[in-house]
Amino acid sequence: MSPTFALPPTFLGLEHRDPAGASLVVAGIPFDLGTTNRSGTREGPAAIRRASRMLADGANPMGWIDPAGLSVADAGDFSIALGDIPASLALIEEQAAGFGHLMAMGGDHTVTLALLRALHRRNGPVGLVHFDAHLDTWPDNFGQSLAHGSPFYAAIREGLVEPRRMIQVGIRSPVPKEVHDWTAAQGVTIVSAEEVHLSGPEAVAARIRSVLGQGPSYLSFDIDAIDPGQAPGTGTPEVGGLFTWQVMAMLRRLKGLHFVGMDVVEVAPAYDVAEITALAAASILWQYMTNMVYNQ
Amino acid sequence: MSPTFALPPTFLGLEHRDPAGASLVVAGIPFDLGTTNRSGTREGPAAIRRASRMLADGANPMGWIDPAGLSVADAGDFSIALGDIPASLALIEEQAAGFGHLMAMGGDHTVTLALLRALHRRNGPVGLVHFDAHLDTWPDNFGQSLAHGSPFYAAIREGLVEPRRMIQVGIRSPVPKEVHDWTAAQGVTIVSAEEVHLSGPEAVAARIRSVLGQGPSYLSFDIDAIDPGQAPGTGTPEVGGLFTWQVMAMLRRLKGLHFVGMDVVEVAPAYDVAEITALAAASILWQYMTNMVYNQ
Amino acid sequence: MSPTFALPPTFLGLEHRDPAGASLVVAGIPFDLGTTNRSGTREGPAAIRRASRMLADGANPMGWIDPAGLSVADAGDFSIALGDIPASLALIEEQAAGFGHLMAMGGDHTVTLALLRALHRRNGPVGLVHFDAHLDTWPDNFGQSLAHGSPFYAAIREGLVEPRRMIQVGIRSPVPKEVHDWTAAQGVTIVSAEEVHLSGPEAVAARIRSVLGQGPSYLSFDIDAIDPGQAPGTGTPEVGGLFTWQVMAMLRRLKGLHFVGMDVVEVAPAYDVAEITALAAASILWQYMTNMVYNQ
Amino acid sequence: MSPTFALPPTFLGLEHRDPAGASLVVAGIPFDLGTTNRSGTREGPAAIRRASRMLADGANPMGWIDPAGLSVADAGDFSIALGDIPASLALIEEQAAGFGHLMAMGGDHTVTLALLRALHRRNGPVGLVHFDAHLDTWPDNFGQSLAHGSPFYAAIREGLVEPRRMIQVGIRSPVPKEVHDWTAAQGVTIVSAEEVHLSGPEAVAARIRSVLGQGPSYLSFDIDAIDPGQAPGTGTPEVGGLFTWQVMAMLRRLKGLHFVGMDVVEVAPAYDVAEITALAAASILWQYMTNMVYNQ
Amino acid sequence: MSPTFALPPTFLGLEHRDPAGASLVVAGIPFDLGTTNRSGTREGPAAIRRASRMLADGANPMGWIDPAGLSVADAGDFSIALGDIPASLALIEEQAAGFGHLMAMGGDHTVTLALLRALHRRNGPVGLVHFDAHLDTWPDNFGQSLAHGSPFYAAIREGLVEPRRMIQVGIRSPVPKEVHDWTAAQGVTIVSAEEVHLSGPEAVAARIRSVLGQGPSYLSFDIDAIDPGQAPGTGTPEVGGLFTWQVMAMLRRLKGLHFVGMDVVEVAPAYDVAEITALAAASILWQYMTNMVYNQ
Amino acid sequence: MSPTFALPPTFLGLEHRDPAGASLVVAGIPFDLGTTNRSGTREGPAAIRRASRMLADGANPMGWIDPAGLSVADAGDFSIALGDIPASLALIEEQAAGFGHLMAMGGDHTVTLALLRALHRRNGPVGLVHFDAHLDTWPDNFGQSLAHGSPFYAAIREGLVEPRRMIQVGIRSPVPKEVHDWTAAQGVTIVSAEEVHLSGPEAVAARIRSVLGQGPSYLSFDIDAIDPGQAPGTGTPEVGGLFTWQVMAMLRRLKGLHFVGMDVVEVAPAYDVAEITALAAASILWQYMTNMVYNQ
Repeated sequence: MSPTFALPPTFLGLEHRDPAGASLVVAGIPFDLGTTNRSGTREGPAAIRRASRMLADGANPMGWIDPAGLSVADAGDFSIALGDIPASLALIEEQAAGFGHLMAMGGDHTVTLALLRALHRRNGPVGLVHFDAHLDTWPDNFGQSLAHGSPFYAAIREGLVEPRRMIQVGIRSPVPKEVHDWTAAQGVTIVSAEEVHLSGPEAVAARIRSVLGQGPSYLSFDIDAIDPGQAPGTGTPEVGGLFTWQVMAMLRRLKGLHFVGMDVVEVAPAYDVAEITALAAASILWQYMTNMVYNQ
Repeated sequence: MSPTFALPPTFLGLEHRDPAGASLVVAGIPFDLGTTNRSGTREGPAAIRRASRMLADGANPMGWIDPAGLSVADAGDFSIALGDIPASLALIEEQAAGFGHLMAMGGDHTVTLALLRALHRRNGPVGLVHFDAHLDTWPDNFGQSLAHGSPFYAAIREGLVEPRRMIQVGIRSPVPKEVHDWTAAQGVTIVSAEEVHLSGPEAVAARIRSVLGQGPSYLSFDIDAIDPGQAPGTGTPEVGGLFTWQVMAMLRRLKGLHFVGMDVVEVAPAYDVAEITALAAASILWQYMTNMVYNQ
Repeated sequence: MSPTFALPPTFLGLEHRDPAGASLVVAGIPFDLGTTNRSGTREGPAAIRRASRMLADGANPMGWIDPAGLSVADAGDFSIALGDIPASLALIEEQAAGFGHLMAMGGDHTVTLALLRALHRRNGPVGLVHFDAHLDTWPDNFGQSLAHGSPFYAAIREGLVEPRRMIQVGIRSPVPKEVHDWTAAQGVTIVSAEEVHLSGPEAVAARIRSVLGQGPSYLSFDIDAIDPGQAPGTGTPEVGGLFTWQVMAMLRRLKGLHFVGMDVVEVAPAYDVAEITALAAASILWQYMTNMVYNQ
Repeated sequence: MSPTFALPPTFLGLEHRDPAGASLVVAGIPFDLGTTNRSGTREGPAAIRRASRMLADGANPMGWIDPAGLSVADAGDFSIALGDIPASLALIEEQAAGFGHLMAMGGDHTVTLALLRALHRRNGPVGLVHFDAHLDTWPDNFGQSLAHGSPFYAAIREGLVEPRRMIQVGIRSPVPKEVHDWTAAQGVTIVSAEEVHLSGPEAVAARIRSVLGQGPSYLSFDIDAIDPGQAPGTGTPEVGGLFTWQVMAMLRRLKGLHFVGMDVVEVAPAYDVAEITALAAASILWQYMTNMVYNQ
Repeated sequence: MSPTFALPPTFLGLEHRDPAGASLVVAGIPFDLGTTNRSGTREGPAAIRRASRMLADGANPMGWIDPAGLSVADAGDFSIALGDIPASLALIEEQAAGFGHLMAMGGDHTVTLALLRALHRRNGPVGLVHFDAHLDTWPDNFGQSLAHGSPFYAAIREGLVEPRRMIQVGIRSPVPKEVHDWTAAQGVTIVSAEEVHLSGPEAVAARIRSVLGQGPSYLSFDIDAIDPGQAPGTGTPEVGGLFTWQVMAMLRRLKGLHFVGMDVVEVAPAYDVAEITALAAASILWQYMTNMVYNQ
Repeated sequence: MSPTFALPPTFLGLEHRDPAGASLVVAGIPFDLGTTNRSGTREGPAAIRRASRMLADGANPMGWIDPAGLSVADAGDFSIALGDIPASLALIEEQAAGFGHLMAMGGDHTVTLALLRALHRRNGPVGLVHFDAHLDTWPDNFGQSLAHGSPFYAAIREGLVEPRRMIQVGIRSPVPKEVHDWTAAQGVTIVSAEEVHLSGPEAVAARIRSVLGQGPSYLSFDIDAIDPGQAPGTGTPEVGGLFTWQVMAMLRRLKGLHFVGMDVVEVAPAYDVAEITALAAASILWQYMTNMVYNQ
C-alpha cells in the first residue's frame, strides 16, 4: 500500500483513466486567456491533482462514502487553442460534449461558458449555484466580451441557465451599479459574503436549495469566493471572503439536489502557499463526488 | 481601456497627482526605524499601491460609489531622514501639515504620532478609533521612547487626542499590566479581538460610533489588527486576530462619522504572500474613501 | 534591554537552561519519520523557538501573568535515532521520563506515544484533550503501525489514557468508518471542526472541562487542528479547520484543570509563511504556561 | 534627498514623464497572451520599475555616466487588447510608432514583432542582437502563429530585420532540427550558451560587433537567456544559461554601435525571488542607457 | 497539439506507461527516511515530472535527437515501506530488478544502494560516475548505517561497484579525514568542485571517460553537486557547487559510454524556487536519454 | 549523537558559550538602522546560526581541520539601542572591546565602523580586505553620515585602517565618480567583480596577499559581494557578482595572513531562499575559523 505521496498523478490517484463507462469524469482545462488581473490558472489542474493526494485515503465522514472508490475517471486535460479565446471555447465545448457527468478543473472562469453550452445541448437550461467574489455578469472585460468576467452574462443571454433558478454566493467585489442591477433584474439571487458571515452557512444552504429546487442544476465554484487568507492562489482576490468551513458546510447540505455537472475554476498556483488553495479546490470536488454518491 | 495590470503605479491608478485642490490626498510614508521586531514597512506604500489595482474597476456596492472617480490625489511618498527617528518625525509632521484631508500609507506605527501632531495644529484634539493587536501606549520601546509601541502614549500626553473619545479594537498581545492599566485609566475604551469575535462586528461598530460621537475623529489602522492568516506581511503578528470581513463590516458601519484623517500602517511586504496583506490595506483605504463620499 | 530579535535562541529567550529545579521544562523533539504525507517537522522546534520571541515581552492579559518570568527551562532538543522509529520512540520515552512537567515541541505526532508512555510510568493513565484534524487512532499507516496516524490507537490499547476522559477537537479528515467507530466505541468524545464553528469555543471548552474532570490530564495539540490558512506549515492539512482565536479562547477557559504535560506537534516550517504556523504553536505553549501559573 | 525606497514608482524614479522631447523613452508592455508555458509576464513592467530603484543613485562606472540624469522619460504602460493577440500587436505597433528611441519592458517575446514593425516604418530593416535561450523562429506555437516562439520567424519573413546582421546569443533549448536549420539558412549567426561559457564574453562581444557592423541595430533581450539561478522569474527557463556578469560584460563592450531601439522581455514576477530577475532586467536597460549616452 | 502545460503528468508527458518492451524506464522512488539534514525528497519525483514538461517539445541540439520520441516508459512510483529503511531498500531492490534499463528519480541517496544491488544481480560490479557535494562513503550517519551518507560505503564493501572504475565529481563538503582517506584508498578518483571550476568541464569529462572506460557503468547524480543558487531545493546544500552549464557540458561529452542505469536524487521541492531544481534534474535525465539514443 | 537538525541553536552548535578563554568569539549584531534600500538584517545572526548546522559535522578538507573542535565561543547577540544609530555604534564598540578575536555576524555594514574602532584601541590601524559590491566610502547616505554606505569613509578618516593596506573585491555598483576617485586617491586597491571573473580567484588572492602583507589585518565581508543568484537575501543586491566557489577559493588562499578580526554583514533573511544566503555567510565564517587554526 503506497503512502499518499507515491500515488499516480491523477485526481485522488485514480487508476481508472477511461472516461467511457465512468459515472463521473474529472478533467482539467488549462485555459487562462480570459484573466483580467493576475494570470496563471493554466497551471491549476496539475496543482489540484497533486493536492488531492491528501484526500485519497479514507471515507468522507458524511455518509462514510469513499469517493476514491467510485466509478470516476480522470480524463486528463482538455486541448485548447493557444492564444485564441473563441477557438479555445469551441474546442472546450466540443470536448465537454463528449463526456457524461463532468467535473471540470479550471482554468479561468471563461471556460464555464463553454461547459454550459455543452451541457445545454443535452440538458437544456439548468439551474445554477455560483460561488464567487464577483458577479461575472459584466458585458465587457476591458474591451473583450469573452473573458472571465462575463460567462454568466453570456449564459443568461444565450438561455443556458434559468436566471430565477440561479443564485450567487460570496459576492463582494467592486462592480458598476448597472452590472449589478441587470443581474438582479434577470431574477438572479445575490448573496453577499457578509450575508453568509452574518446569517451562517445553514441558512444560506437552505436558500440555495430553495432557489435551485429539484430541476437539473450546475455548480460553478470560483475559488476566489473563498477568502484570500485561505485561497491566496488566484488572480482576482477580494478581502472579506468565505471560509472553507462555511463552504464545506454549505456543500454538505446540498446533497440530494439534482446536479448534472460542476467546475472549480481560477486556481493560480504561482500565487499559492503550501498548496492550500489547490487543496481547497480538491476538497470541493471531493465533497461534490460524495454528494453524487449519496444521491445514487 | 486598460486592464488593471496596466494602470499607472499610483493608488487606484489615479492620474491626478496634484494634491492642491483634491478633497482627499493619499501619500506614502516609507519609515520603519521604529519597528521592534521584524522590519521592512518602508516597502509598504509601494506594495499597497500595486495591490490597489484590483479595486480600480467598479463601484463600492455600498452606495454604488466609485472611489476612483473622486477628487483624490496620490501625492507620492514623504521624505524621511534616513536612520534618524526625531528628524523623520519632524519631516513627516511638516509635510502632513501641508495637505488637507490626508490618507497615509505607512510605514510603521510611529508615524501616526507625527500625523496627529500635524492634525492638531489645525483641528485641536481629535477622537480616535484605533485598530491594532497592541495598545501602542508603551512609554518605552526597549529603551527608545519614539517608536512603534508608543504613538498613543505620546499622543495622549501631548493632548493630541481626547482619551474618552478613543477606542482600540482587536487588542490581544502580551503587555505589561501597568501599560494596560494606564491606558484604561485615561478613559480609553479597549475592545479585545476575542470580544469582536464573540459579539460580532455590528455591535462593535455601534460601540465605536458611541465613543467617537460627532466630533472630529481620526482612524488609525495597524494591519496587525487583522489575523496573521489574512495579513502575514507585518512585523509583530499575533494570533487570534480580526478577520477582514469583520473589519470591512465595521468600517461600512462607520459612515457618517466626522473623520478628518486616517492611516494604514505596518504593512511589511517581504513577509506578505500573494499581495494579500497589501490588498487588505488597500481595501481599508478604499472603504474609507467611499465613506467620505457618502458623507458629502 | 534587548529588542525581541536579539534574544537568546531559546523558547521565549529563556536564559535558564537547566531543567532540574524548573517547574516546567520545554524541549524539542525533532523527529519526523512517522509522517505519511509532506515531511519536515524535524525543523519544527527551531522554528517555534524563533517565533516565540514575539511573545517574550509582556504579560498575558489573562491574569496578567508573564510566562517568561516563571521557573521554566528550555532543555534543548531530544536525541533521536536517525531513520529508526522504534529506537527513536524508546529514546524519547527515556529522555521524557527524566523530566518533571514537560512541554514538548514536535516533531510529528508519533512522539506523543513515547511521551504518554513516559508519563504513564509516573502518573498512570491520564485524561486527554486532543486537538487535531485527524483522529490518529488508525491501527495502521500504509503498513506501518508506529507512525503519526496511530499514537492514540496504541495509547488506548496500552492503557496510557482513559478513553472516557478523552476528547478530540477539530476532527474533519477523510477516515475509514471502522477507525471512527472503534474510537467512539472506546468512549472517546469526538468534536468535529464544524461543531466548534457552529457552537462556539465557550461551549466546546465547557465540554472539554466536563470530559476531563479534575483528574490528571494531558494536552496534545496537532497544529493541523488549525485551518491551513492560519497554519499552512504542516504535513497533512485539511480545509475547514479551527481558527486561532477559537483555540486561544478554548485554552484560556481550561485554566484550573489538572494538566501534567503537553505537546504541540506537526509544525513543518518548510511549508510555513512568515512564521505564522510557528507563532501559533508558540502561542499555544505560552497560553499553557500561563494556565499552569494560574493554577499555582 | 529621498532614499531609494521612497522614489516615484517610475523607471529609476524618473520624474520626467512626457515622452515628447526625450531622447530615450522607457515604456511597459504588459502583454502575455503569447506564452506557451508558465504565464505572468503582464506583471513584468511594474516589477522592473520597482527593482530599478536600486540603480537610481550614482553613475555607471563605465564612463561615469549617470543614466538617471539623461533626457529619458518613462511613458507608462502601453494599452493592449485583452485576450486578443492580433489586436494587441496592432495596438502595440501603433503606440510604438509614436515614440522616438524606445526601450520597451515586456511582456512576452511576441511584442518584439510589433516593435520591429513600428521600427521598420521609420528605419527599414535593422540588424539584431538577440539574447535568448530559444531561437524564437518557430513557424508555429502549438497551432498559434503569433506567439512568443515566433517573433523572429515573422520578422525575417516580413523583412523587418537583415538576417545576415542578426546574431542570437545564449541558445540552448530543445528545438526541432528544421527550425534550427531554417534559421541558420537565413544567414543568422547562432551562439550557444555553452560557447559563451567556453570562449568568454569578450570574444562573443567582438563577434556581435562584427555581425551588427555600424548599421542601425536593435537589441532584444529575453531574460531567459540568463540562467534560471539568476533569473528564475520567467516562463520557459532552461538550465545552463548565461551569467549576468557575462551579460553585463558583453553589453559594456557594445558601446558605440548604432542601436535604434531595444526591449527586455519575459520577466514573470510571480516566479521571481527577492526581485533578482527584475533587477537583472533593470540593469540591462540601465547599461543600454549608458551606452546611448556614451554614443552621444 | 497541446501546450506544455496540458501534457499528461508523466515524465516528458510520455503516454506510454507500460515498462515492458520499453528500452528505457523512468520511475520515481519517493523515499526520504535516510536524510540527515532537511527532509522532503519524497516529493521529488512529482516535481521532476512536472518540470520536465518544459523539455517536451523539440529535439536535443546534440545530435537532433528528441528523447520524447524514444521507446521510454514512465512506470510511476515505486512502493516503499513507510518509516522503515531496511524494508524499503528491499522493496526498492525487488522492484528495480523487474525492469531493464532504469532511470530512477529519488528520493534521497540511500536508494542508490538498493538500485546498485538490483543491478548487480544482472550486471555484476559496475563502474560509477557519481556527481555530489559529498563523498557518501560515511560508514555511519549519526548512528544509522543505512542512510544517505553511506550508499557507496556499502556498495564498495558489497562489491557492487569497481572502486577503480569509480569517480566522484563536485566534492566539497566538510568530512572526517578518515572517511576521505578510506575512499581514496579504495582507488576511487575524487574530483573537487574547485577542480571542475579551475580546469573546466571538458577536462573533467575526459577524466571521467578515462576512469569508466568501456565497461558497464552507472551514473548517480546527487542534485546537491550543483550549486545552491541553481539547485536550492535539496537537503544538504554546500556552497561553491557545480554550475548546470558545466554539468550539461560534461554529460554531453559522456556519450558513447556504456551506461546500464542511472539515478537523480535528493530533489526536495519544498525548498525549491520556481521549479529550477526540478528542471535541472529533469534536464539531466533528458540528456542521459539523448546519450542512450546516440549510443544505439 | 544528534543529527544536524537537533543541534543547539548556536553557531555550529557550539556548546561552549563563555567567551572568556576562547581563542575565537562568534557574536551576532542585529542592527539594521543603517540600511538604505531593503531592510531586515537584524534577523541575520539567527539565520546564519541556523544555517551553520549544515557545516557542523566533519573537518574542512583544507588541512583536515574541524572548526567545531576549536576553542570557539558563541557569545550570543550584542545589545543595541533601538532606533538610534550613534548610541548603537557606541554600544557595539564597547561590547566588541571586551572580546579578544571577534567574528561578528551582522547586521548591516554600519557595524563595521564600531568594530574597527574597538579593534583600533588594541591594535592600532589595520590592513583590510573588504568583499563587497559597493565601495562603502560614501561621505553621505541620503543625508545620514553614519549608515551602511559609509563605514570605510569614516574608518579611513579616523585612521582605523591603513588605506594602502586596504583592498576591495567584487565592486560593481553605480557610484558617484567623486566617491570612487576619493577612495582610489587614499591608496585603496579596488578590484571589480568583472576583474575577478576574468582573471580568476587565484590571481586575486595573490593580489590580496600582496596588499595586506604580514601586518595585522581585518576581513569585512558584505554578503552582497556574492551574486544575487547565490545570495538573494540581502538589501542592496547588484547583478554580476562573485560566485561562492571564487569566494571560498580566495579565502582558502589567504591562510597564513595575520587576521585579528572579521565580520560577515548584510544578510537579510526575509529575502533569502532555502537558507542559501545564510549558508554562504556561515561558510565564510567557517573557512575563516579554519584559516585561524592553520595559522596556529
